[in-house]
Formats: sequence, structure tokens, C-alpha cells
Amino acid sequence: METVSENTCFGGVQGVYTHRSTSCACDMTFGLFLPEEARDGPVPLLWYLSGLTCTHENAMTKAGAQAWAAEQGIGLVFPDTSPRGDDVADDEAYDLGKGAGFYVNATRDPWAPHYRMWDYIAEELPTLLERNFSIDPERQSITGHSMGGHGALTLAMTYPDRYKSVSAFAPISNPTGADWGRKQLSAYLGDDEAAWEAHDASLLMAEKGFDGPVLIDQGANDQFIDLLRPETLAAAAAKRRQQIILRLQPGYDHSYFFVSTFMEDHVTFHANALWA
Amino acid sequence: METVSENTCFGGVQGVYTHRSTSCACDMTFGLFLPEEARDGPVPLLWYLSGLTCTHENAMTKAGAQAWAAEQGIGLVFPDTSPRGDDVADDEAYDLGKGAGFYVNATRDPWAPHYRMWDYIAEELPTLLERNFSIDPERQSITGHSMGGHGALTLAMTYPDRYKSVSAFAPISNPTGADWGRKQLSAYLGDDEAAWEAHDASLLMAEKGFDGPVLIDQGANDQFIDLLRPETLAAAAAKRRQQIILRLQPGYDHSYFFVSTFMEDHVTFHANALWA
Repeated sequence: METVSENTCFGGVQGVYTHRSTSCACDMTFGLFLPEEARDGPVPLLWYLSGLTCTHENAMTKAGAQAWAAEQGIGLVFPDTSPRGDDVADDEAYDLGKGAGFYVNATRDPWAPHYRMWDYIAEELPTLLERNFSIDPERQSITGHSMGGHGALTLAMTYPDRYKSVSAFAPISNPTGADWGRKQLSAYLGDDEAAWEAHDASLLMAEKGFDGPVLIDQGANDQFIDLLRPETLAAAAAKRRQQIILRLQPGYDHSYFFVSTFMEDHVTFHANALWA
Repeated sequence: METVSENTCFGGVQGVYTHRSTSCACDMTFGLFLPEEARDGPVPLLWYLSGLTCTHENAMTKAGAQAWAAEQGIGLVFPDTSPRGDDVADDEAYDLGKGAGFYVNATRDPWAPHYRMWDYIAEELPTLLERNFSIDPERQSITGHSMGGHGALTLAMTYPDRYKSVSAFAPISNPTGADWGRKQLSAYLGDDEAAWEAHDASLLMAEKGFDGPVLIDQGANDQFIDLLRPETLAAAAAKRRQQIILRLQPGYDHSYFFVSTFMEDHVTFHANALWA
């Protein structure tokens, strides 16, 4: 693992690191914010999964999350959204290939050799962080934006003992039922839709739910709302009687101006679960 | 004036607008955040001047300022840092020409026709904002980062009745005495150093000072600190017995991770003066 940069930030350190990923068979880069308290011992960790087209950098510079993480004494990790490198398959579309890993393990060519973001986020990166940084693996929570909200929700429901809480900003909530999802799931996993079900937050909510608090913020003026299908997740959660706070926010769109507005609420929400 | 974008943000609106600038003889773009309160009447305005290489966008997306401006009920304007366009002179160096207007009116070719950022910030843009937005011209303050800190300090000391308060993050504090300054001032204003004196915060501090509160934050680990020369400004302010808070912040560098860390303090500082 190599250090790309470390900047003092809100009393802690905002670092950027690269490492050889065995899951993705390429070099991967991530951002990690550790609050001042990490100098004295392990701190809780909040995962932030980013959306389509993003790298590790977008949320790290634009979401304003460090202010609140520092206040709460928790760390933040900002992984990349896909494998990277000249020998990694890509597509001309912004929503397939690089920047669009969709948090699955691809089984179809040309994606299969590198596109294993599920394993990377669920297994490899947690182990790397635990070994190299002052992180408490018993206190983790997860959030994300858009495609990253999809990743956060599906990971949380698949590993119920791993995360104390889960939240999402404008998540892709029902990818098996919309173009943001069907396109990527068929490319990465093939046309057998049974293989898609493990990667649909609404279906997982109906089947499993989550044994902890859930917070979802969705801009009511989101230009992509028809692709996100929050109504499907809302219905599944209500039918299940899932512990959830789902907020439709009047006026807000899909941008980081929306994400940053509600970041304090999300970090505080997770901190309450992490420190409980 | 044309609207490029408007996003709901912290209950208010983050807009981006373009207009034909008479000062700079080109189209100019700026960001403007107006809090919710602007719907009911004019709000105070805090100017944020950016540093070398920046556009209107950097601070608007990375400084985390809107959270605090919304809390305080004040507007924020993010001007560009130079004229723009294909017919505007430029230089290969990052610190001259586009992105490096230095907040002066150039008198030397090839810069003179467009590089009039002093007039743009001091005269043209205030008038445009007052005419088109819910802004209270009697309640303005100014801040900035690096080259923008230089702009904020020199404007505030030149127009003592205009701004209620002034602050800066890692300002270029003594440009007549360092390479960040001598290079640009000689290019834009010529070799007669007498013409430079009106654009040096340390010289203005010694000569005039500022009739109001001043706040300066400077990272102690700033990689550019030898070019910024905070010691010259600190000495001038202390000798004058200027009302000032000057903070050397251990560990912090020149980045937006530094700026965003102390943004709450700066916005609160200005709000106290603006609402007094």
C-alpha cells in the first residue's frame, strides 16, 4: 500500500492510498478520513459508496462529510467505484464499465476478470483497513449515493451482522425494474434474472430487511427519480414493518448540493448507532 | 445575464450565472448561494475570492461554506479569478494569465484589454448582484483563499466603508516581496514598483489598516508559506495595533481540506459583523 497524499483536515487526517487489489486484479485507490481520536485507538468507520462516474475523490472533496465525522469521532472511507487501468474493459457509456462497477462480481466477459467490486468492498478493503489503520471492525456502518446507495443497501442486507446502521442518498432502489440496473446487471451477470435478485435493494428488503436503523433521503425534484424507483423500496420497507426513516426532500435534485445538505443528518444517524 | 444552473442546497439556492462583463470585455461566470431567507427580503452578502488556477466552481463545491451561510442567513458569491475566452491572453504558467488575474487592473499588454479583475470585483459585479438578486448592499463582507485572500484584504483596506469585516485563508500577504506577486505585478502593472503598492496587503496594513474586525488563518505546514509571507502582515498589523485575529494552525497545508476546516469560523465571524 502506498500513500498518495495526507492532508490535515478538521483536526484529523484525510489520506489517499493506493494498493494492489487481488479482487479486482488492478491497482485501486481509496480515500480515508481518520479523526483526531484515531491517534489514541481504533475508531468506528462509516463507509461511503459513490455513484456513477465517481472516483474515490468526489465525495471526499464535495460532500462536506469530514466536518461531521470529526465532530462524532468516526472515520470515513471513500472507495473507488470500479476497477481501473489500461487493461480493464470499459464502455463508451458513462453508466457501464469504469466508474460504474455497480458493486457486483461480474461473471460475464469482458467484465469478469476485473469487475469484482462486491468482493472488494465486502472482503478485501475491510481487511486492508483493519490491518493498516486505527479502525474498530466491530463498529462499521455504511452509506452511499445513487449507485453507491444501491451498494450500501445491498451489502448491509446481505451481511446483517457487519453494519450497525445503513443509509443512502437517492439510492438506485430497484435496479431489476429500471434502466439503471437492468443494463448493468445483464452486462455483468448475464440474462438470467435470478442472478440479479441478490443485488436489488427492494427485493432484499422484502425478503430479508435489515436488523437495525435505516435512513433514506431522496430529492423530490431528482432528475433521475424514475430510474431510482424509491416507491418500490418504500413499499417493501413499509410492508415489512422495517425500522426506517424515508424522507422525500422538496426541491432537491440528484447533485452533491443535495448530498452535502443532508450529510450532517446521516453522519449523526450513523454515529448514534456506532456509539450505542 | 443567463442562468447556467440552480440547485436547491441547505434550504436555499446555489446558482451559477453568466453575463457579459464590461470591465473584462468577455463573458464571466459566477456562483451565488442565497439562503432561504432571501425569499423574504435582502440578505447580507459574503464575498469569497478564490486562488490561483480556480474558477467560480472550486470553493462553491469544496469549501463547505453553504452549510454555515444557511445557518447564518447570509449569501455567498463566488466570482471567477480571471477573464475567460479564446481571445483573452494567457500564459503557459499556472500563476499568470487565466486563473491568475490577481485582482488588479492590468495596464500592460497583452493583459490590459481584459485583465481588469479589480474593477470587476469592486464595481461591476456588486452592481449586477444588487440589481438582480435579493442582496443588501449595506451588509457586505469579504474573504478569500491565497491569491483570493490577497484580493479580499486589498479590496477591504481600499474601500473601508464597503465591508463590515474581512478575513482570509492563507493569503498572499506581501506580494511585492515574493515570487507570488512580483511576477504578476510586473507583468500586469509594469516595472514601476510604486504602482504595486496599492496591491500589497502588508503595505496597506501599515499605511491604512482596516476599521473593523480582521481574521486570518494560516496553515503552519503550508507548502507555499514562504511565498505567502504571513510574518510581514502579522508584523504590520501588530505595529498598527489593528483589531485582528491571526491564527497559525499546526499541521494544516494550503489545500481546501484546510479551508473547509475553518470555514465555519470564518462565516460565523462575518455573520457577527454583518448582523451587528
